[in-house]
Amino acid sequence: MIKAGIIGATGYAGAELVRILLAHKDTEIVWYGSRSYVDQKFAKIYGNFFKLVDNICGGDDVAALAKEADVIFTATPQGFCASIINDEILSQTKIVDLSADFRLKDVSVYETWYKRTHEAPRYLDEAVYGLCEINREKVKHARLVANPGCYTTCSILSLYPLVKEGLINPDTIIIDAKSGTSGAGRSAKTANLFCEVNESIKAYGVTNHRHTPEIEEQLGYAAGRPILINFTPHLVPMNRGILVTAYASLTDPAVTEEAVRAVYEQYYGGETFIRLLDQDVTAETRWVEGSNYVDIGFRIDPRTRRVVVMGALDNLVKGAAGQAVQNMNLMFGLPETEGLLMPPVFP
Amino acid sequence: MIKAGIIGATGYAGAELVRILLAHKDTEIVWYGSRSYVDQKFAKIYGNFFKLVDNICGGDDVAALAKEADVIFTATPQGFCASIINDEILSQTKIVDLSADFRLKDVSVYETWYKRTHEAPRYLDEAVYGLCEINREKVKHARLVANPGCYTTCSILSLYPLVKEGLINPDTIIIDAKSGTSGAGRSAKTANLFCEVNESIKAYGVTNHRHTPEIEEQLGYAAGRPILINFTPHLVPMNRGILVTAYASLTDPAVTEEAVRAVYEQYYGGETFIRLLDQDVTAETRWVEGSNYVDIGFRIDPRTRRVVVMGALDNLVKGAAGQAVQNMNLMFGLPETEGLLMPPVFP
Amino acid sequence: MIKAGIIGATGYAGAELVRILLAHKDTEIVWYGSRSYVDQKFAKIYGNFFKLVDNICGGDDVAALAKEADVIFTATPQGFCASIINDEILSQTKIVDLSADFRLKDVSVYETWYKRTHEAPRYLDEAVYGLCEINREKVKHARLVANPGCYTTCSILSLYPLVKEGLINPDTIIIDAKSGTSGAGRSAKTANLFCEVNESIKAYGVTNHRHTPEIEEQLGYAAGRPILINFTPHLVPMNRGILVTAYASLTDPAVTEEAVRAVYEQYYGGETFIRLLDQDVTAETRWVEGSNYVDIGFRIDPRTRRVVVMGALDNLVKGAAGQAVQNMNLMFGLPETEGLLMPPVFP
Amino acid sequence: MIKAGIIGATGYAGAELVRILLAHKDTEIVWYGSRSYVDQKFAKIYGNFFKLVDNICGGDDVAALAKEADVIFTATPQGFCASIINDEILSQTKIVDLSADFRLKDVSVYETWYKRTHEAPRYLDEAVYGLCEINREKVKHARLVANPGCYTTCSILSLYPLVKEGLINPDTIIIDAKSGTSGAGRSAKTANLFCEVNESIKAYGVTNHRHTPEIEEQLGYAAGRPILINFTPHLVPMNRGILVTAYASLTDPAVTEEAVRAVYEQYYGGETFIRLLDQDVTAETRWVEGSNYVDIGFRIDPRTRRVVVMGALDNLVKGAAGQAVQNMNLMFGLPETEGLLMPPVFP
Repeated sequence: MIKAGIIGATGYAGAELVRILLAHKDTEIVWYGSRSYVDQKFAKIYGNFFKLVDNICGGDDVAALAKEADVIFTATPQGFCASIINDEILSQTKIVDLSADFRLKDVSVYETWYKRTHEAPRYLDEAVYGLCEINREKVKHARLVANPGCYTTCSILSLYPLVKEGLINPDTIIIDAKSGTSGAGRSAKTANLFCEVNESIKAYGVTNHRHTPEIEEQLGYAAGRPILINFTPHLVPMNRGILVTAYASLTDPAVTEEAVRAVYEQYYGGETFIRLLDQDVTAETRWVEGSNYVDIGFRIDPRTRRVVVMGALDNLVKGAAGQAVQNMNLMFGLPETEGLLMPPVFP
Repeated sequence: MIKAGIIGATGYAGAELVRILLAHKDTEIVWYGSRSYVDQKFAKIYGNFFKLVDNICGGDDVAALAKEADVIFTATPQGFCASIINDEILSQTKIVDLSADFRLKDVSVYETWYKRTHEAPRYLDEAVYGLCEINREKVKHARLVANPGCYTTCSILSLYPLVKEGLINPDTIIIDAKSGTSGAGRSAKTANLFCEVNESIKAYGVTNHRHTPEIEEQLGYAAGRPILINFTPHLVPMNRGILVTAYASLTDPAVTEEAVRAVYEQYYGGETFIRLLDQDVTAETRWVEGSNYVDIGFRIDPRTRRVVVMGALDNLVKGAAGQAVQNMNLMFGLPETEGLLMPPVFP
Repeated sequence: MIKAGIIGATGYAGAELVRILLAHKDTEIVWYGSRSYVDQKFAKIYGNFFKLVDNICGGDDVAALAKEADVIFTATPQGFCASIINDEILSQTKIVDLSADFRLKDVSVYETWYKRTHEAPRYLDEAVYGLCEINREKVKHARLVANPGCYTTCSILSLYPLVKEGLINPDTIIIDAKSGTSGAGRSAKTANLFCEVNESIKAYGVTNHRHTPEIEEQLGYAAGRPILINFTPHLVPMNRGILVTAYASLTDPAVTEEAVRAVYEQYYGGETFIRLLDQDVTAETRWVEGSNYVDIGFRIDPRTRRVVVMGALDNLVKGAAGQAVQNMNLMFGLPETEGLLMPPVFP
Repeated sequence: MIKAGIIGATGYAGAELVRILLAHKDTEIVWYGSRSYVDQKFAKIYGNFFKLVDNICGGDDVAALAKEADVIFTATPQGFCASIINDEILSQTKIVDLSADFRLKDVSVYETWYKRTHEAPRYLDEAVYGLCEINREKVKHARLVANPGCYTTCSILSLYPLVKEGLINPDTIIIDAKSGTSGAGRSAKTANLFCEVNESIKAYGVTNHRHTPEIEEQLGYAAGRPILINFTPHLVPMNRGILVTAYASLTDPAVTEEAVRAVYEQYYGGETFIRLLDQDVTAETRWVEGSNYVDIGFRIDPRTRRVVVMGALDNLVKGAAGQAVQNMNLMFGLPETEGLLMPPVFP
């Protein structure tokens, strides 16, 4: 049994890790780390785990936990993982960091967008960007995995094959993304109260959301050069789900939907968790809720010669905890899909 | 592998059966029966099963299916199961009927409340009312199980120990129930459109909802005599979940919360799927969503000497498909919890 | 023009007062009092009033405001109004208090249920309970009106004629109430976050909610003796609306629906804001949203001889700000319906 | 009093016309035309109007109605208005058509996108496109006004000044729009059931939604040449509201936010119903619900030199019934804002 510790277990992503790991046949959760709820019963904070989890929340002493756990998930605010990581810890345990600390290779980009000093830049090179479908082989040998953001996972997977194959002009990429409210976290803010979110939709972080450089870096690798994109997230009155609607101009106006589809098939045909939708179907978040699947579809506009790509995933699963477990599976040599094949829950 | 056929697979309860059985290690779904979608791909109707189910919807020929399937789930409108059942079918397969056809022992009660003639009253005696926690032993030997209704399961389990032990006066029982909208089914009705349900709550079936006699019959067995109750269901703007708030006068005004709790513990202490809540906690549907658990709690009002019992479950799982699979497990000698231990999904 | 000041303008009820008073042809709002947002633009807090209200939020100095305003609405936490009220203020202005400070005549009941010392018990006698349809004449001559609670307004109006006329046994009254989430206020609490409320329903304050004694007092006046009831509020995932489902035993089992209806007609037939529903219709909150109407309907259960009464209103309008303005209209000799005839908004 | 007739009064837009006209001091509704509910009480279909509207639904005989009504609103499916209009009717009454029949000047564009033959192309020239803020003078003298679509109103108003002043390259315009579900109408379709819409978001009509050519035509007038855009609508789990997020490249990369803002001020500074948001605020549908306001804001991305414009309105008010009444006011020489100044309802 893999002994797993969770730091930040009382956030939504942390609690989703608990849900997934409880049903994972090769893991045992040994630590429910929290900052706000130390010494309280975890199941008092998340009543869904009543009678399923008896543990008390512990603190966030990663150094101590590293001696006990085979893998530590840090579902923590920006800066935490960078502030505690060191060689000794990495010699004792593997780390899957769900924060942004090790996602960006260029420390100055991190410090510009996150407006904080990076406390452990020397691990940036070693850290593997844990987008399994792209970096599978590297993840297998990693000690430190930077688990991608929710918007990022959906955006990159939706566009990666088109950029990599040069089918679209990367400078024309516009990503309009929509997220359920669990993406805003569980801290008590007026803006996230039921009555403020319900019956409304808004954009936020317009032109400056922190997932922008992460998307640009990864798609830039695919393009072979730095790129700039527009990325606009929106808050939607639903609990879970991310929908990405991405626009880009085709480099060859004569390319057909069949040709584009063939490229997607080539990249994703063998992937369990990426479902390339039929041509008459568009992505809907309801079809992936609770699961680790990403649904991707597209249309070519015959008039403007732009492609419109739509991707949908569950922000807490493939966008956070599910992908973290997928990374863990790879890091420990388990079947990549272990514990992650639960069908989407609808309605 | 148990070969399972589903008639009514394209309703919400039917589709939930698919979700649960897909993850059940001892079953294989051999038939996706539908009336509205014959010859269409099941995964076109329920996109969550895209790439997970390749099957085409079949019709509702139970006689043919009985030759192939070890168990048939009929998640069908009232009257269907009664119209097709016969000895030959029952000699070939087991049936778990999710409709009301075999829930009421008294055919005249059925005909009065459902306003239709019962086509197979001779099976009423044989049919076992499939509330596993109450009728476990009978279910194990049944060929025909009448799977309880969603409101009913929640209402009966919430009150059963109190009635059985004579702690409350059954004639004072008032059940005020609230249900998510999936309970209203998937047929296209104006009253169930998003804009009609969202931002509203209403009672319906006031004084005449069909689950009333079912609750009365089962609680009447516990009371040892016929009883009459008030039952009022409400439609709530959420997808899943039933909350029952039940009121009754204590027979002994001096009884303590500890004593009442002890009775609940005596009946349900060993039950996996019934979670008796701590005394400072009230039942909330969010904590059971997607799972087979029923959460039950209560308070005694020291002023009126009434007990207020609150029960919560997921209407599609413990209130329909989950309980049906729990019954199937018992009927086939499998562990009762097989395929049903998925933790609740929150948020 | 009546000069109106609002203390607590940045709560949901306060902001609803702004919405109503802006459209009221005889009033001018001269003060937007707040505790949390002093010196900020009101329209920055409530973007719906952008370009409609230019004012800056002021503090809560009622003594100063009393010199300027003809009427002051205190939409403030319990204890505030009692802590500031005095003869000088009441000689200068009229007060409509939306808190519970002056709703209960018996100070010991207040102190028991609200767990605080009442700072101005000498005004309890003078204060008029502002349920206009019941206390209309008294309100007209009041200096200090205690505006009823939201649950209370709906509960009392639904049952008042039946209690007053002795049609039901008051000791059998059970009120099961359901509220939209704006009733929980705008302060930032985890329990009221979108993801916590959405897709869930729960009871709260079971057996001890503070609106209980208010209902008991008012219905006790109607009964001519003290009564005890059960009152259970529930939180529903919607912004606005209260639905009350009330149960009581008929004193005369032979009474007909026509007879009960005649009593309702006698009491409410002339009321603008009470709509007695047709006998085949049940109350739904969607039909009153945004308006000052209360919809009331009922059924007699021929089997249990209980009456089930259902009432629906908008908790922020008839349950708070609308009723406060209705009281103001009466206090100033204006037509009672002035500024309150906006039709409900649906969907 | 202006006598107003409504054809299609039982759709959501028709019912919203009723709500607005009931509170309009210069109009009287003389006809509640319906196809599905003829001879039924209107208030039985829309319970919010119980006791407010006593009328029975009539049919759709516009020729007869024209003799009685000063203005007829046709809130009807595509093709209806074109099928009944003639000179006699237009000599007797004014028409505000809420369908698309007379929005597009080029009949071939209509026939291509709507896949039907236009039955009255000879009125296309006369019809005035009723976007009041753009075509105010023409509307004043019109007999036949084509009331703009909901997406269209929001899209055009958001971008018009930028296109007209040449600040953006029209060929780069991408409009990503999000709508509440009332935009999908009140007919009973499975796809619009509560459980299908709730907890999900999806795009639809990708590359081929019928509002596309309407936006292109109007912005083409502003540009002085034909343009092609991408327009993608999305269905959001909320009742009302449209949010448009539009992207376009600046023609002069050096243009400042102040300069862009000045242009918006120049066009909209005097408009009552267009609220140009402060630079630190983004449009949110919750702030316009129930009202005739459009909120518009923008950001310039300093990295990509694109402008991101966000507009929000209530699809049933400024996107349908409110704008129709605004047009009526202009057509009859009333103050343009008459009956339309109700503040937005929040929460």
